Amino acid sequence: MADVATSGDRVVREQPLATFAAAALTRAGVAAGDAAVAARVLVAADLRGTPEHGVGRLPALVRDLRAGTIAAQPPVALVRETPTSVLFDAGNGLGAPAAVRAMEAVIAKARTLGAAFGSVRNTNDFGIAGYYAMLALPHDQIGIASTNAPRAVTPTFGRDRLLGENPIAFAIPAGAEPPFVLDFATTVHDASGELVPLGGPGTETSGHKGYGLGLLADILCGVLAGGAFGPDLPASGEAPRAGAVSHFFAAFAVGGLLDPARFKADLDRELRSVKDSPKSPGYDRIYVAGELEHERTRDRRARGIPLPAPVWDALRSLAGDLTIPFDLTPSGGTPS
Amino acid sequence: MADVATSGDRVVREQPLATFAAAALTRAGVAAGDAAVAARVLVAADLRGTPEHGVGRLPALVRDLRAGTIAAQPPVALVRETPTSVLFDAGNGLGAPAAVRAMEAVIAKARTLGAAFGSVRNTNDFGIAGYYAMLALPHDQIGIASTNAPRAVTPTFGRDRLLGENPIAFAIPAGAEPPFVLDFATTVHDASGELVPLGGPGTETSGHKGYGLGLLADILCGVLAGGAFGPDLPASGEAPRAGAVSHFFAAFAVGGLLDPARFKADLDRELRSVKDSPKSPGYDRIYVAGELEHERTRDRRARGIPLPAPVWDALRSLAGDLTIPFDLTPSGGTPS
Repeated sequence: MADVATSGDRVVREQPLATFAAAALTRAGVAAGDAAVAARVLVAADLRGTPEHGVGRLPALVRDLRAGTIAAQPPVALVRETPTSVLFDAGNGLGAPAAVRAMEAVIAKARTLGAAFGSVRNTNDFGIAGYYAMLALPHDQIGIASTNAPRAVTPTFGRDRLLGENPIAFAIPAGAEPPFVLDFATTVHDASGELVPLGGPGTETSGHKGYGLGLLADILCGVLAGGAFGPDLPASGEAPRAGAVSHFFAAFAVGGLLDPARFKADLDRELRSVKDSPKSPGYDRIYVAGELEHERTRDRRARGIPLPAPVWDALRSLAGDLTIPFDLTPSGGTPS
Repeated sequence: MADVATSGDRVVREQPLATFAAAALTRAGVAAGDAAVAARVLVAADLRGTPEHGVGRLPALVRDLRAGTIAAQPPVALVRETPTSVLFDAGNGLGAPAAVRAMEAVIAKARTLGAAFGSVRNTNDFGIAGYYAMLALPHDQIGIASTNAPRAVTPTFGRDRLLGENPIAFAIPAGAEPPFVLDFATTVHDASGELVPLGGPGTETSGHKGYGLGLLADILCGVLAGGAFGPDLPASGEAPRAGAVSHFFAAFAVGGLLDPARFKADLDRELRSVKDSPKSPGYDRIYVAGELEHERTRDRRARGIPLPAPVWDALRSLAGDLTIPFDLTPSGGTPS
């Protein structure tokens, strides 16, 4: 599982990549602060090894911002607030800035009262759900984040694609071990390559559980936020619909139940007991959720992020279009 | 999916069954109030169609209570409490009474502040997780309940059975539609009949997601409660270990984000849009989570609960052992 770039990859450093992403978004009209946040979330996906949510999305984001499909400087509104909850309307802006703002508000409330939750409606793709759940970790809180997404999968026994990949993420702070970060799409690709609910098609292998989790995410995100849900979301592959995405966030303070130092020491023991247990024949390692992504992030921070040649080329072309510098100071691979 | 008793079944009414279960537990030393709660949770499982958590468990429960493996009159202790959290030590008593007490405390806190969570440690099997999550429904709250359980399944790439079936339940209030109640074991039986994580063995069909959910439940329940977790739980089929089970509960007030009447009307629309969508060939109905159990409960309340002959016989025999009346006033089947 070593993180080796393949021959066509260009290896770039985190910081110049984030700077470039922020510059591209700024040039597309996004305010500097929001652009920096969105860039950080994109690069986090590349660091963690989920490039489908990474900087490779920049050309499409810039296109949507320039077309006005996504509002570059949206009127973000605080719609409802209580001591333990907060609801934002993101004004059809980029997903990440409003999502970070909402999760940070939830965390602040959980720091005061121990538990809180929140939503963002009228927003767009926020990248990796785990990013937001993980914002709770430094505060000794358990973070939860979810989003609905364009419709891509059929309900069990159904024929129409009604639910998105609808990820749900949980982040739990550990001590010496990497945090437990379970960030999963509620869908999977089955043997034929088709997207089906986690568990599989039909009920024989419990696909109804994955379908239930996908619908749960659409309810917690879309319905509870008063946002778009179910049939009001576009189908995957269709043109995006303005603001047809919503997110859900929650945070619990570990200290509400157990001394955080004790909790983190116990969680270390729990995680190690799983990792140190005997392996199946042919396997030399058992992973716990988030561990691989944690190691990739560490390795890529140290040695650089491999960008496939087509992504590199697309970003260079984007830089040309936007007349911004394209200096990713590659730390490896062939200089451009 | 009509709820028809098979020929060997005895059909009994809910109330006499609950009265009998409570009498059996009382005779085994449990205080009357606790016995009534535990009986209600057992019968709820039979009403919902999950008899493995139903009154069929009474003989084993009575055996464990008499042997002292489960404490009949445990010293339940409030270990920690904040405005949004509560932790109980159940003193190795029956699972249900302490679980109801904890979930009711969580709900009361969420009524005041909007969000709360809680745990029970040093306890035993609580039956169906959905029962506790559903306690939140009349309060226009979203309820969550989970438990760890004897070790039955291997982690992805592992060889030792380290995790239990570890169910997680979410209950969400609807309007005219039945509530959305997703109550799922994080494990499934694969083609060979073996218990594997939801998603399957290995990672090809995302079994690591089910493994992650099972470990999540063990962390939220066992580790966060300061209770038994991981290797400290008995293996499935082994003798129970005193108090080696913990639960996690949470509740969010819908009104923290959206007017509850609006939310419930929107959720009705969401659920109907799924149910009314086109069906796969060979299927005439799409279910949403909890719907089938809701209908079974309604039908069994009206027409009685079918008890398989072996369960009936075991309960009759238990009544003899305990010298308590066995009058389930069967509403159908052959009178005993």
